[in-house]
Amino acid sequence: MKLYIGNKNYSSWSMRAGVLMAAFDIPFEEVKLRFDFSPGSEWTRVIAAVTPTKRVPVLVEDDGFTVWDTLAIAEYVADRHPEHAVWPRDAKARARARSLCAEMHAGFMRLRSVCPMNIEAFFPDIGQKLWVEDEALRADVARLDAAWSDALAASGGVFLFGSFSAADAFFAPVAVRLSRFGLPLSERAAAYRDALLAHPAVEDWVADAMREQDYIAEDEPYRQSRDA
Amino acid sequence: MKLYIGNKNYSSWSMRAGVLMAAFDIPFEEVKLRFDFSPGSEWTRVIAAVTPTKRVPVLVEDDGFTVWDTLAIAEYVADRHPEHAVWPRDAKARARARSLCAEMHAGFMRLRSVCPMNIEAFFPDIGQKLWVEDEALRADVARLDAAWSDALAASGGVFLFGSFSAADAFFAPVAVRLSRFGLPLSERAAAYRDALLAHPAVEDWVADAMREQDYIAEDEPYRQSRDA
Ligand SMILES: N[C@@H](CCC(=O)N[C@@H](CS)C(=O)NCC(=O)O)C(=O)O
Ligand SMILES: N[C@@H](CCC(=O)N[C@@H](CS)C(=O)NCC(=O)O)C(=O)O
Repeated sequence: MKLYIGNKNYSSWSMRAGVLMAAFDIPFEEVKLRFDFSPGSEWTRVIAAVTPTKRVPVLVEDDGFTVWDTLAIAEYVADRHPEHAVWPRDAKARARARSLCAEMHAGFMRLRSVCPMNIEAFFPDIGQKLWVEDEALRADVARLDAAWSDALAASGGVFLFGSFSAADAFFAPVAVRLSRFGLPLSERAAAYRDALLAHPAVEDWVADAMREQDYIAEDEPYRQSRDA
Repeated sequence: MKLYIGNKNYSSWSMRAGVLMAAFDIPFEEVKLRFDFSPGSEWTRVIAAVTPTKRVPVLVEDDGFTVWDTLAIAEYVADRHPEHAVWPRDAKARARARSLCAEMHAGFMRLRSVCPMNIEAFFPDIGQKLWVEDEALRADVARLDAAWSDALAASGGVFLFGSFSAADAFFAPVAVRLSRFGLPLSERAAAYRDALLAHPAVEDWVADAMREQDYIAEDEPYRQSRDA
């Protein structure tokens, strides 16, 4: 089974799928396609043959069968690996976890657009400025904080539903954004953000991203180069 | 079990959940909250108490347990009703159906923004103009057409995966948009659009929408009033 991903430093959707599979020790071969959409690039030569959406992540089985989109990949992994609690075992917790993932999948647009994931870069000053000026960003973070706090209070665990589940994988890139932009959280939500960042699967992804040392202009609203 | 929905004429996400549950004969009480976000409106008084996202659709169990977001509602209904093939029974078809729903859930942004759902209104002239001028719209429709055609060719059925599934419910509002704006499709995709529109659960929803005779300015980029 191959998981095609983009740059680890930038690709938040790839991170969700990669972290999920790593967290459950599901063996897969990682194939990285650099975000270079120019004619003749590896991305351009390969992407259309592996996925109809031309997006990553995409899972490709040995027989060529493909599953695209992070949420469908999570469900596929859960389906194929009933021995793992990819979703919480309790029916209500499971529904709640899926509500949160679906909300993440189509929402938090302001946070996603003004605080794009860039694992190696720290923007506390920009984060502070945005925090003061951007009401929609504050609303996204307030909703995240409330959603996390509610789930953590109900489960009483370190992760949203007790042990690590797909819902935590879905919020891993969010934890990165919040930490890189230094956005404020309640105590409980901040502790969760830190627990997420300290999960081995997240740490491994972050370490790989730090080693990438690549620069993709389209994903860099705040830096002119890696040194700036 | 209550399903809170918005205006049937406009609310494409509500339609997905409502059509899905009706198509599988799952009993529920429908609670309509008109899209009136002004202070003191029914929406404003009720929505925050029923869902943390302040969006519809939201499913509320008799004990107050809530499931929000269409995709999570679909999974919850599938979980609770294993006797129904809400998702296809075949594992690969199921993964494919989920890929399509997830793609719909976070994608087709151009189609969604320039051709908003408005069941009672027909805009063939605007559709034709958009078709000529808007490359991103053409790309969305081309992707839809290819996705539908692939699934239909593989299943050989009237619906995407043979019998009606959650994937078809997810595309029901798209069938409405394509028909109201008169956007061109391949023969196979057009036949599927028409089959969707002729499904009893879709027909019932459309009939209710036609009876609404409401007008919400925020959802009307192309009409000044219901008569214009
Ligand atoms: N809804 C999709 C989103 C995937 C997505 O947008 N991926 C980005 C990278 S994080 C991508 O492939 N971008 C390339 C492009 O848009 O051409 C999912 O959940 O997998
Ligand atoms: N991702 C959500 C989207 C829900 C959504 O955007 N619903 C719209 C109506 S179709 C809504 O409630 N709008 C009210 C608002 O944005 O305040 C889902 O799939 O349920």
